[in-house]
Amino acid sequence: MARPRTAILSREIIGRAAIDYVESGNELQLVPLARRLGVSVSSLYHHVSGRDGVIHAMRQVLVSEYMTEGPVPGDWAQRIRGEVERTWRMYAAHPRVLQHMMTVVIDEPDVLRFYSTLADALAEAGLPDGEILTTIEVIDAFSFGAALDALSPDTVLGAERATGKLAELLPGHPSGAARNRLVFDRGLELLIAGVEARVSAYRSAS
Amino acid sequence: MARPRTAILSREIIGRAAIDYVESGNELQLVPLARRLGVSVSSLYHHVSGRDGVIHAMRQVLVSEYMTEGPVPGDWAQRIRGEVERTWRMYAAHPRVLQHMMTVVIDEPDVLRFYSTLADALAEAGLPDGEILTTIEVIDAFSFGAALDALSPDTVLGAERATGKLAELLPGHPSGAARNRLVFDRGLELLIAGVEARVSAYRSAS
Repeated sequence: MARPRTAILSREIIGRAAIDYVESGNELQLVPLARRLGVSVSSLYHHVSGRDGVIHAMRQVLVSEYMTEGPVPGDWAQRIRGEVERTWRMYAAHPRVLQHMMTVVIDEPDVLRFYSTLADALAEAGLPDGEILTTIEVIDAFSFGAALDALSPDTVLGAERATGKLAELLPGHPSGAARNRLVFDRGLELLIAGVEARVSAYRSAS
Repeated sequence: MARPRTAILSREIIGRAAIDYVESGNELQLVPLARRLGVSVSSLYHHVSGRDGVIHAMRQVLVSEYMTEGPVPGDWAQRIRGEVERTWRMYAAHPRVLQHMMTVVIDEPDVLRFYSTLADALAEAGLPDGEILTTIEVIDAFSFGAALDALSPDTVLGAERATGKLAELLPGHPSGAARNRLVFDRGLELLIAGVEARVSAYRSAS
């Protein structure tokens, strides 16, 4: 007979089970999660502190898979592209977990390293200190918006009721995963170009 | 005795009830939604076609509240700002409904009018046809990412474990609603500046 699952319960096992559970379309609740793991809710509490603790455990699992590689080489824009690509891949592969991850404070060292790298890259770009954190939050908000965009139906807009320019453009537009990838790439380029424009404006004003 | 609720059931009533239900943190399911309305699931089906139909009804209710005002005056960038502000307000006030709205095809005339206005504005800006729809999707993905950012805790990053530039900047950073508003405003400005940079690059290349 196999050993009972309780003997091997850990924060990581809880995090992985919760990721599967949430990505299968279930609401994150401790009782059914414990049942799925074949343990009691009080056993969960030996490893994680409640629902927020489960969310931290989910993030830790994903971060260890997507965000522990070393620094991306290159100039500030290349470093931003490389770093943001990793988080976007993490978000896009787990859009339902993402919606929970956003609700708890970020204190995982690998995630803080990611934000630190963006801060250093934006400072190197010449962005004033007062704009760096908000710009990071903009890039992050765009990344998770673009990741959630992957939940969209293959065709987002109903072309038969569209008119004018929109109606003219819809038939040739890519759909599905190609459309979603294009949204991420183009959006990141537009934001980087926006940062460059902002830096130029500051330089010519000073 | 009051008339039974079934007598006044409508698509709009179902949409409003579903919005309240989802925004209260419940999973969207037809059985408990019908129970809350005091009707049978089959009564719901007289007005909406299943779960997707309920999502369409929710969007129709929100669109009628946030998106039926006339066109925004001004140049292309002002029109984009004004239009996107409306959808962002809608998304930000109903982040949990938003997560459902994204999963069904958009065919509401007022929403298509919104996308048409953005398409016309970007064409007027001088963006090539082949980039217009993706740029609209970028702006939209950013808007719902910024709206979901409102679900973040007041302080997003745990400052005590941050280092370097990030640690230096965190203490002076705004929090809560002020932080969220700033993310939306700044992000939209960066994207508009990005579009301008893209248009300039095309003009100087041609």
